Amino acid sequence: MTEQNIRIAIVGATGAVGTVALQLLKDRDWPAENIVAMASYRSVGKEIPYGDSVLTVVEATPDAFDGINVAFISADSSVSKALAPEVVSRGGLVIDDGSAYRMEPNVPLVVPEVNGADVEWHEGIISIPNCTTTPLAMALAALQAESPLTRVTVATYQAVTGTGASALQELKDQSAAIANGNEVSVEVYPHQIAMNVLPQVDDFQPDGYTNEEHKMINETRKILHLPDLPISVTCVRVPVPVGHSEAVHAEFANPISAERARELLGNFPGVRVVDVPNASVYPMPHTSAGLDEVQVGRIREDLSHESGISFWLSCDNLRKGAALNALQIMDEVVTRNRLPGAAATA
Amino acid sequence: MTEQNIRIAIVGATGAVGTVALQLLKDRDWPAENIVAMASYRSVGKEIPYGDSVLTVVEATPDAFDGINVAFISADSSVSKALAPEVVSRGGLVIDDGSAYRMEPNVPLVVPEVNGADVEWHEGIISIPNCTTTPLAMALAALQAESPLTRVTVATYQAVTGTGASALQELKDQSAAIANGNEVSVEVYPHQIAMNVLPQVDDFQPDGYTNEEHKMINETRKILHLPDLPISVTCVRVPVPVGHSEAVHAEFANPISAERARELLGNFPGVRVVDVPNASVYPMPHTSAGLDEVQVGRIREDLSHESGISFWLSCDNLRKGAALNALQIMDEVVTRNRLPGAAATA
Repeated sequence: MTEQNIRIAIVGATGAVGTVALQLLKDRDWPAENIVAMASYRSVGKEIPYGDSVLTVVEATPDAFDGINVAFISADSSVSKALAPEVVSRGGLVIDDGSAYRMEPNVPLVVPEVNGADVEWHEGIISIPNCTTTPLAMALAALQAESPLTRVTVATYQAVTGTGASALQELKDQSAAIANGNEVSVEVYPHQIAMNVLPQVDDFQPDGYTNEEHKMINETRKILHLPDLPISVTCVRVPVPVGHSEAVHAEFANPISAERARELLGNFPGVRVVDVPNASVYPMPHTSAGLDEVQVGRIREDLSHESGISFWLSCDNLRKGAALNALQIMDEVVTRNRLPGAAATA
Repeated sequence: MTEQNIRIAIVGATGAVGTVALQLLKDRDWPAENIVAMASYRSVGKEIPYGDSVLTVVEATPDAFDGINVAFISADSSVSKALAPEVVSRGGLVIDDGSAYRMEPNVPLVVPEVNGADVEWHEGIISIPNCTTTPLAMALAALQAESPLTRVTVATYQAVTGTGASALQELKDQSAAIANGNEVSVEVYPHQIAMNVLPQVDDFQPDGYTNEEHKMINETRKILHLPDLPISVTCVRVPVPVGHSEAVHAEFANPISAERARELLGNFPGVRVVDVPNASVYPMPHTSAGLDEVQVGRIREDLSHESGISFWLSCDNLRKGAALNALQIMDEVVTRNRLPGAAATA
């Protein structure tokens, strides 16, 4: 089975991540006849331009997955929970963007550059990490090659497309209302997001941390195979369309110089060092949007810890944070000949 | 000398901080005849409404400080350096908002709620901390009463008025341009700030930290009288008009429960606990703007450190971060009878 014969379903094809997934497939000249755009019944019949073709959205029902080799699901957890077993039972592979399966012991959680080999033990479902976890895990993996990680503290600056297309519209609408002196309407977030920042991403747990913060902690541990790594996170939403950023303070068993850290990060696949402070060259959401690589800069020795490294990263949350990572997982599965049924057709 | 007989000069009266200082004086019914609005020659003759009166801006020349008891200087460091000695030599007290004198050993750096007694040893100049340092020092002082601080890690979310009135205009102009589909013009910051975040506040030093980050570290140590406290900071500008926020991870010699931390912060003067996560009640720049108190929330035990507390704060950078703190320093000096010449007139 050559890769482009794989029949792909995009579940959530009209959403922010689904839209980028289709763009990435188009960039690969993936044939339109091997893509099925799926969404909820509300979007059925909607036509999505795809190169010279048009994809017509069909409803994501169980039977719609007949003959699908790979289903990318970017939708609510409840949708993943309902549909993923249907895909698997029909012989397809699920690559799930939601949190439903990430921490299941029989589901690999994969950033190919970090733990690509984990796809080997999938049982039909592979999860994509949270869009803040992926770039963090990549940068930490790069540095960890030099000395064992001992602790991580992170503060995030997350774009509204992490929430979805409706949040992007709300940011635009609120910004326009403020610019024109009109009243601001609040629907998607609990508070105004334009000209504001919200120290809340997802719901709160009784310990005072949000689900998002726990996701970052648990997922980073799983990807790095460090189940006890101490991590503390504060997740914050900022009025930015695309591009998650993170201020990271990482501690290691032994000191790593800033120069060596820059070298390790620069050599890591999928990471680009953007770090010329005196020329005001550093990662920003505005310049990371649309790029595939995780941008890392502000690399410096931690002034408060003898073997700490501080850095700043920005990453397109829809690409490497979601859709691109999903496609790369598919590539990894194909390379390792672990596509369901692949052994039979190879 | 009763307090309202004090003759005050506001240097930088047309700037973002000067404007708020005049508002605060008006709220106190400070008589217009005891206020001299000063600025550079470019603003001379400009009329600033002040209650039923009008203040006419005069140039901040040395002789303009004859008869001035207290000069608030909110201007470039070079202006402070040139004018402060002139005020002092004429018998006035300088309360300086800039960084020029903050780390001088004979200049107190004061947040009245934390180290008000330090005004006792002034020699004519008292400095106000950086607008990100003040709220941090207050929150840390509250917690430090329970157990010695051992380390602090901070990531900031700083409003554009920390830069000044021109930066606020740039944020507004850029936001309007984006809303209306026009080209964005960049002048004040090295990059677009609307719909973006910049991991740079002030210039860089050779160690990869910015001046702003070093200010926060050095000033926090000086105010808390902890010259060796390990602190690491990442300072970030966000597209917010007013209100600086900070994600803080603080470590102590002994564990402090989140409940006890909430109590300590709630009892500290000038701090308000805003912390009902399940109701999405937490500090935000949007709701801290215009308020005097530092808002602290997201108070929780640090999951990565056995005696760590994590929290989030927002503070009006023009009020407690600058103009209000300046007025409170004046109050502290008056209360302690340390106004120059006060002994003679008392």
